[in-house]
Amino acid sequence: MAKTSITNGRGRVVIDRMRPCVDGGRFPIKRTVGETVAVDADVFADGHDVIRCVLLHRNSAAESWSEVPMRPAPNDLWQASFAVEEVGRHLYTVTAWVDRFFTWRHDLGRRTDRADIALALRIGAELALETAKRTKGATAARLRQFADALGKADPEQGKAIGADPEFGDLMAQHAERRFAVTHAQVLEVVVDRVRGRYSTWYEMFPRSCVPEGGSHGTFAEAEKRLPYIASMGFDVLYLPPIHPIGTTFRKGRNNALVAKPGEPGSPWAIGAPEGGHKAIHPELGGLTEFRHFVAAAKEHGMEIALDIAFQCAPDHPYVAEHPSWFRWRPDGTVQYAENPPKKYQDIYPFDFESDDWEALWQELKSIFTYWIAQGVNIFRVDNPHTKPFPMWEWLIGEVKREHPGTIFLAEAFTRPKIMHRLAKLGYTQSYTYFAWRNTKHELTEYFTELAHSESREYFRPNAWPNTPDILTEFLQYGGRPAAMLRVALAATLAASYGIYGPAYELIENVPRDPGSEEFRDSEKYQVRQWDLGRADSLARYIGRLNEIRRENVALQSDWSLRFHHVDNEAIICYSKSNEDLSNIVLVVANLDPHHTQSGWVTLSLPGLVLDHDKPFQVHDLLSEARYLWHGPRNFVMLDPATSPVHVFRLRRKVRTEHDFDYFL
Amino acid sequence: MAKTSITNGRGRVVIDRMRPCVDGGRFPIKRTVGETVAVDADVFADGHDVIRCVLLHRNSAAESWSEVPMRPAPNDLWQASFAVEEVGRHLYTVTAWVDRFFTWRHDLGRRTDRADIALALRIGAELALETAKRTKGATAARLRQFADALGKADPEQGKAIGADPEFGDLMAQHAERRFAVTHAQVLEVVVDRVRGRYSTWYEMFPRSCVPEGGSHGTFAEAEKRLPYIASMGFDVLYLPPIHPIGTTFRKGRNNALVAKPGEPGSPWAIGAPEGGHKAIHPELGGLTEFRHFVAAAKEHGMEIALDIAFQCAPDHPYVAEHPSWFRWRPDGTVQYAENPPKKYQDIYPFDFESDDWEALWQELKSIFTYWIAQGVNIFRVDNPHTKPFPMWEWLIGEVKREHPGTIFLAEAFTRPKIMHRLAKLGYTQSYTYFAWRNTKHELTEYFTELAHSESREYFRPNAWPNTPDILTEFLQYGGRPAAMLRVALAATLAASYGIYGPAYELIENVPRDPGSEEFRDSEKYQVRQWDLGRADSLARYIGRLNEIRRENVALQSDWSLRFHHVDNEAIICYSKSNEDLSNIVLVVANLDPHHTQSGWVTLSLPGLVLDHDKPFQVHDLLSEARYLWHGPRNFVMLDPATSPVHVFRLRRKVRTEHDFDYFL
Repeated sequence: MAKTSITNGRGRVVIDRMRPCVDGGRFPIKRTVGETVAVDADVFADGHDVIRCVLLHRNSAAESWSEVPMRPAPNDLWQASFAVEEVGRHLYTVTAWVDRFFTWRHDLGRRTDRADIALALRIGAELALETAKRTKGATAARLRQFADALGKADPEQGKAIGADPEFGDLMAQHAERRFAVTHAQVLEVVVDRVRGRYSTWYEMFPRSCVPEGGSHGTFAEAEKRLPYIASMGFDVLYLPPIHPIGTTFRKGRNNALVAKPGEPGSPWAIGAPEGGHKAIHPELGGLTEFRHFVAAAKEHGMEIALDIAFQCAPDHPYVAEHPSWFRWRPDGTVQYAENPPKKYQDIYPFDFESDDWEALWQELKSIFTYWIAQGVNIFRVDNPHTKPFPMWEWLIGEVKREHPGTIFLAEAFTRPKIMHRLAKLGYTQSYTYFAWRNTKHELTEYFTELAHSESREYFRPNAWPNTPDILTEFLQYGGRPAAMLRVALAATLAASYGIYGPAYELIENVPRDPGSEEFRDSEKYQVRQWDLGRADSLARYIGRLNEIRRENVALQSDWSLRFHHVDNEAIICYSKSNEDLSNIVLVVANLDPHHTQSGWVTLSLPGLVLDHDKPFQVHDLLSEARYLWHGPRNFVMLDPATSPVHVFRLRRKVRTEHDFDYFL
Repeated sequence: MAKTSITNGRGRVVIDRMRPCVDGGRFPIKRTVGETVAVDADVFADGHDVIRCVLLHRNSAAESWSEVPMRPAPNDLWQASFAVEEVGRHLYTVTAWVDRFFTWRHDLGRRTDRADIALALRIGAELALETAKRTKGATAARLRQFADALGKADPEQGKAIGADPEFGDLMAQHAERRFAVTHAQVLEVVVDRVRGRYSTWYEMFPRSCVPEGGSHGTFAEAEKRLPYIASMGFDVLYLPPIHPIGTTFRKGRNNALVAKPGEPGSPWAIGAPEGGHKAIHPELGGLTEFRHFVAAAKEHGMEIALDIAFQCAPDHPYVAEHPSWFRWRPDGTVQYAENPPKKYQDIYPFDFESDDWEALWQELKSIFTYWIAQGVNIFRVDNPHTKPFPMWEWLIGEVKREHPGTIFLAEAFTRPKIMHRLAKLGYTQSYTYFAWRNTKHELTEYFTELAHSESREYFRPNAWPNTPDILTEFLQYGGRPAAMLRVALAATLAASYGIYGPAYELIENVPRDPGSEEFRDSEKYQVRQWDLGRADSLARYIGRLNEIRRENVALQSDWSLRFHHVDNEAIICYSKSNEDLSNIVLVVANLDPHHTQSGWVTLSLPGLVLDHDKPFQVHDLLSEARYLWHGPRNFVMLDPATSPVHVFRLRRKVRTEHDFDYFL
């Protein structure tokens, strides 16, 4: 007789839709140290037998699985969770089986016929003895005692033994799992350090930290800027490329096609005779100065993030050393970047279809490991969507295998599926469309997607109100209120956010041309010196926002975000909370930078666990004002000229209004 | 230097979320002959190069793929479709590549600088020559001509050649696909014959076709019933088990624990000394009579469907011949079916955890192939959810590999995920919860799920208003209007439906006990003789419904279902249509079997492609009444005592009201 090709035909349990799971297990989910993975699976078997179900998980380096019993929920759903405590890759899957003992116990409890019970007790004794054979010592002895007792028991005694918790525990611990089914997939979770989830970025051009009497900044001078940046509460200080800048086709001020003598060029035109991606622009200092700067930043609680842009100025040493990494044209020149009719002759892209692609990949990877060796563990990658996707999966995988704490931020402002792909492939964080989401509808829809759609398992947003390339229309026209509003939204909507400063705190908002999102006199093409002490600087305001983020864990993760109704389209209201709801932050913002707006907020109180009929206090952590609110509907009014945003902490211990300062 | 483990690092295209796809490709989708598979995939590459994308499909037995170019839609979606014309398994996948020629052509069209264009023409000539090398004869010669022409052209001429459609077609046909990426998965579609999608079932106990003077029906007598059943328009005649019935613990009338002498027992207590699942109950006739009956049914346009119930009466020959297929108890008896404290001593379930499980599976499979050899190609499987899921996947797969036209109907009235699993594993059709969905909300929600959720790719509903086990409360209390309503809903909501007759058309609706869904004097336990000529029979009504189904292709598939608003919760309105909208059926039903109900229907006219401001005719195919409707809002009133349902055909050629019969 022909054999079936089924190896485990007696594996009667089905384990379906194990989740969280990205693209059928093709990609890992993401967590940070200390977070949990709550696993759901649809598990069932034929017939009415009792099944048992166990979540298996382990560090990818560990040899054996840890087990967590799964609990059944309605509709054949089983659930369990585990915490991830180490940076690296962890694995999880589910195993389940039809449990003959627990089926027997369940049926025994419902039997009423004495002859049936007597026969069932004999079967129970057999099950206990079989289990005893698979165990040793005290356990085996105890199981044999239960078998004996079942054999001698009358129906009432027998039913009591069947229900004995100790007996059940022993049988559970040593269950017959011969026909157990383990899900065909082992799923992965990439565990990052906490900064992968919660980080506060400040982007700065070090060349604008100009020493007295100089014309170009240095790392030594930039070190003096560190206390200022740290005082604002940032923990990642991100530098545009620090490498030698090409001179061929160098761009001048305001992106002029030809630089004038002495103009510094764009840091993204990487490579000159002094070196390429592993070299430092000599005017900034040398490697010693850079390492000193990294160490000094660390002392101020900040990590340095470097910008990695895989492109070359025509002067980059790679061009001569590795001509096969570029595309050559019939006239013997290298193909520069272009988007006809536009030309970017100062930039040579790599030819990733080169026959020498593997050497190219290895070299590009070595750029990361080189800077990791210099103490850098965070990288903002420039335009990753113009480099092959398979390379990123390989490169990030390799780097994180060796240095699992490395954080990669994808600077891809492009179509949604491409941004999602990069996140799936391994990017720790991703830039978002936040800069262009201004209305209540836009913000609500977008951040609901980020916080609650399946993409949250792999896509960690990093919200930026501005960048050196993005001066939005809203910031151009909204003035100081717009700048206050947008940074407060970024800081409270997203656990990771960043600003490009000092342009941001100094409310630099003049575009190069009308309708352009480029800054006039952009630091991309020239050295800028900033008057940090200006009276209108937002430095203290931003510092307070970041302090509030540090003091309120609710703001340090993204998934608890919930929007609340306001009867005015110009006012947005949302809350974030931690798991036990001991920390609840409620943000109310006037999205109109020009006019005072007021309205009635309707809180979804059940989610916030507040009594409908009791007053509670909301404490504005920005203004220190405290208000007594009552029930779900409360009045708000915000004047953008003074403070466009309330960042309330909800106090559930209710005092009467007489306790408040303003009542005295 | 260490090699990467990436084999195609230059495959720059990403093909993501190819669909339709069930559980990440673990299970096939389903179609019937003549239907199409519309394939979507998210396809994109790094950068801005032009990509091309092709759908590959083939019969699983074919050696080579057919290709269909995919068309781009917004947001990186690519689409194409193919028709399936043969019963069996078909395969599909997607391949895509960055196309250097079309990128070149796109850029050329936008170039303005004469020197740039001149250089681009040289590159284009190179691309044409490379392609010529990969081709032969006239194609190669023509491509060389294009290359020559590009080499000699001035910028204007060159741009014209670049845009030449013949040049483009040749380059497209012979595209460089060296770095093409093909999706990692090849997805499957199981193609059934049309009856897999559109079928009309009538269930009948042949033993109740009693010859004059006899006490037990025969196949010969049942043959005489065929014209009656065919006149009602059924195309599947389904028989409960036709095998010898056990005598040990045989059940009596109305499920009495002990049968009286002469009582026939339940046909689902399969097996006696005369034989088991491959034998015929002697009182019905022999194999010759059965085959004659099958052939006679075929002449009436009907296929016979058999009931396959994998369980044994204690007298079944398997018990003695294959004791290892049953579970034995310590007292030397076989474990009968039970759900303590209930016992079903007349039924022995198979022990699918038997060491001899493979032989058991093979034997059970051979039951299907035995009956296929007797001319039966449709099987209704009894309680498939109490047998192991892996067996069904293997068994149905094997049977359909040999006999791809076989249709399996899963009689699983159980939890939703289990019903879905059986459908995924291979069941052609599935019983549904229709019998218990009575209100507008329930029907709308459930049939929207069936017609529009992803489950429609594998779960084909077969709606039954009654079965020998299911006499719903609604039918018990609703009388004739309820019976008319429920069969009309089944016949128009579902492309496949069935009734258990003659109980249905004779409005048999008395339960065994109050609150029970069992019939009093159920045919499950006794022979019943029916007065088919009764004046109140619904036979003609049902016949007309089935005729309407045959004449309106809109009713022969499920996916076009759309519900329309009615301002009365007691009235439901829905439409079905074919793809080109040449056939549109609109059903309006009064769900209240006791009272006349009226209301205003609001049609979603855009979906029905009717002008808002023009009158149109609705023609009730049941009553032959015609109404002139105007715009989306129209009045309806239905008296359940006369006709609870309108089955309208929409006539888009509008006559004036003077053309209508009732106006003369």
